[in-house]
Amino acid sequence: MTAKQKQTEERTRYLDKVSFEEAKEIFFDALSKEGFFVADEERIDVRKSLGRVTSRDVVARRDFPHFPSSAMDGIAVKHEQTKGARGDNPLRIRDFKYIDTGQRVPEGFDAVIMIEEIEVFGDEVEIYESAVPGQNIREVGEDFKKGEVILKKNCVITPEAVAACLNCGNLEIYVKRPPSGVFIPTGSELTSPEEVGEEEVPESNSYIFKGYVRQWGGEAVVWPIVADVYEPIKEAVEKAVEEFDFIVISAGTSKGREDFTAKVVEELGRVLVHGVGISPGKPVLLGIIGKKPIIGLPGYPVAAWVCIDQFIRPMLERYFGCLLSKELRIKGILARHISSSLGVREFVRVRVEKRGEKCIVHPLPGGSSKLSSLVRADGILEVPEEREGFSKGEEVEVKLLEPIDQILSG
Amino acid sequence: MTAKQKQTEERTRYLDKVSFEEAKEIFFDALSKEGFFVADEERIDVRKSLGRVTSRDVVARRDFPHFPSSAMDGIAVKHEQTKGARGDNPLRIRDFKYIDTGQRVPEGFDAVIMIEEIEVFGDEVEIYESAVPGQNIREVGEDFKKGEVILKKNCVITPEAVAACLNCGNLEIYVKRPPSGVFIPTGSELTSPEEVGEEEVPESNSYIFKGYVRQWGGEAVVWPIVADVYEPIKEAVEKAVEEFDFIVISAGTSKGREDFTAKVVEELGRVLVHGVGISPGKPVLLGIIGKKPIIGLPGYPVAAWVCIDQFIRPMLERYFGCLLSKELRIKGILARHISSSLGVREFVRVRVEKRGEKCIVHPLPGGSSKLSSLVRADGILEVPEEREGFSKGEEVEVKLLEPIDQILSG
Repeated sequence: MTAKQKQTEERTRYLDKVSFEEAKEIFFDALSKEGFFVADEERIDVRKSLGRVTSRDVVARRDFPHFPSSAMDGIAVKHEQTKGARGDNPLRIRDFKYIDTGQRVPEGFDAVIMIEEIEVFGDEVEIYESAVPGQNIREVGEDFKKGEVILKKNCVITPEAVAACLNCGNLEIYVKRPPSGVFIPTGSELTSPEEVGEEEVPESNSYIFKGYVRQWGGEAVVWPIVADVYEPIKEAVEKAVEEFDFIVISAGTSKGREDFTAKVVEELGRVLVHGVGISPGKPVLLGIIGKKPIIGLPGYPVAAWVCIDQFIRPMLERYFGCLLSKELRIKGILARHISSSLGVREFVRVRVEKRGEKCIVHPLPGGSSKLSSLVRADGILEVPEEREGFSKGEEVEVKLLEPIDQILSG
Repeated sequence: MTAKQKQTEERTRYLDKVSFEEAKEIFFDALSKEGFFVADEERIDVRKSLGRVTSRDVVARRDFPHFPSSAMDGIAVKHEQTKGARGDNPLRIRDFKYIDTGQRVPEGFDAVIMIEEIEVFGDEVEIYESAVPGQNIREVGEDFKKGEVILKKNCVITPEAVAACLNCGNLEIYVKRPPSGVFIPTGSELTSPEEVGEEEVPESNSYIFKGYVRQWGGEAVVWPIVADVYEPIKEAVEKAVEEFDFIVISAGTSKGREDFTAKVVEELGRVLVHGVGISPGKPVLLGIIGKKPIIGLPGYPVAAWVCIDQFIRPMLERYFGCLLSKELRIKGILARHISSSLGVREFVRVRVEKRGEKCIVHPLPGGSSKLSSLVRADGILEVPEEREGFSKGEEVEVKLLEPIDQILSG
């Protein structure tokens, strides 16, 4: 082994790549063993539960409806007294009560005839059809019965679910406590976006982290920028582990002179994976400190985004026990050849162009350093590990980031 | 014409149905003429713009990157001095500078060689390949050039868009002012969910309204319950028109004794449509007061939901100029026959069951009165106006409400 080979080997020791699926398995298995996915629960007002995830089945506390009510505007009648009414044999009745949709059916009455189907003659009404018991009546519990499950465990609360709970008298429900994540930006070149000096870079990846984690139901906090110095980074991580459920260190995961993330995680906990067969995102670090996940994100924004979407999202999905985003996939024809390395899962940003019934998929130029390729993308085309790319004209499947046909005429 | 026919005609005068597409056209044309879809704009901090919609193109205020930086950890060199280096002809150079990813390339240097590709000998490094100008350097403006469009008009701001704007020095951007909607619950039987009496119903449709309107980028306010009395309803609407961009009156749109919505709208503005060929949701009222849309929602929660999704969502989409929700559609085999009326667009709540590669579509029982049918639904199957239903075994397309395979094992 030459000196050069030896040095290269040392530098890449932690960057021995594991495959994407293997990385997730190692990471999630470790988190599972430490109990990270066992969510705490809290009891909250259902009216403030939108988007939260149930931690138990929600069981109806009362019948809905809780009294028999009319399903129509009309008259409440006693069905016995309507017998024999027909179009050619109208029947006049006196023993009825006007009733509107939703009103309680008065005691002793057992059917409702629609207002459109009667004719009024002073105190009497004429009917043209006999009524059957229960007709146009919403029975007690016909929507939800007391004791019935309204929402299952692991369910994202929708607006209509809130309405259902309120109608069943379930004013408080149990939901999973949102896991809290902290983002620690490191890098001596980073600065606040307001005051960007000649050789400085505005810290912006935290907005990608924060935006998505909150969208997926987590809590997200961003800490002040830490310089590329070992001790302050270590201190920040130690403090973060005390206060948050998961920790993200931004950048410092490749092998430059000042990349301390791996060292810090090694000292405080365990590096599970460092370097994954994905592109962009290869230098990602997945570790654990106590029961808490720690993720070292690459510094390039697209690489950071891929790792947030591919590791943090499924981590939160396992915590909540449900999917947190709709995966909208479409098929299209590739407009030009793309190449990819064997053994690497490549996440290619693409534009999707609709041409009549067909979709044309245009890969966007620019590696992981180009945020423009993500901002302009309609979707992501994944090149699997066993492929060296896709050929021009091939049919491929794209995961859409945004609905296409987005711009309306109006 | 018999007395009965005449009375029926009077009662249904406003409920002469127009088709779903026609209703939208009439409503949106009127709103368009009154200028409702011309959104006001406001200038806001881009860091607080997540989910907002751009009202102008966002044009980069500076180049990103704004200085030439290294794309790798390595050494900065002068390419001229690397000429002739090859694996079999290593070259030692002294005139280099160590550089990390993201650092400025020092004046006079024009290429970067990766750290893995060099070997260090004291003050010198040995290189094994010549460098080309610009190699491993991120050029000024290679991601976004000053003056280039970062985001187009009518664009929903994503987390990565925020990051892009910050990197280009665009700290403030113009976005559309969110339209504000008010929900006026009417009905003498309605009450607060905390204190539901024997014949009372908790007011809950407002949670469906509020939840979705906010999700779609609007502002939503719910007013106190108004009894079924003409004057107070009229007063509430008059006040609402002064304060909000659009008004929703809940219930009071069919033809019971106490349904005042149509009368109020007629007096204060114009009833454009009353009664649409949809099910559920038939009694919906679409009107305009000044330039402000007013929507009378049916009282049954599923009918209310259909009208919110089918009229208020596209109204907001036209205001914002973009789609506000991902439409995830799948195909499946219908498990049982469903029937529908000719001329009516029916929104059938369905469960979707995955059986291997196939999806089986199960229509859920219960009319518009059954909130359970919506809460338990995976998706909506639309029966078009020209169909009287679908047959068992037929392939149908379902719009998913939630991702299926929702429950994970974890």
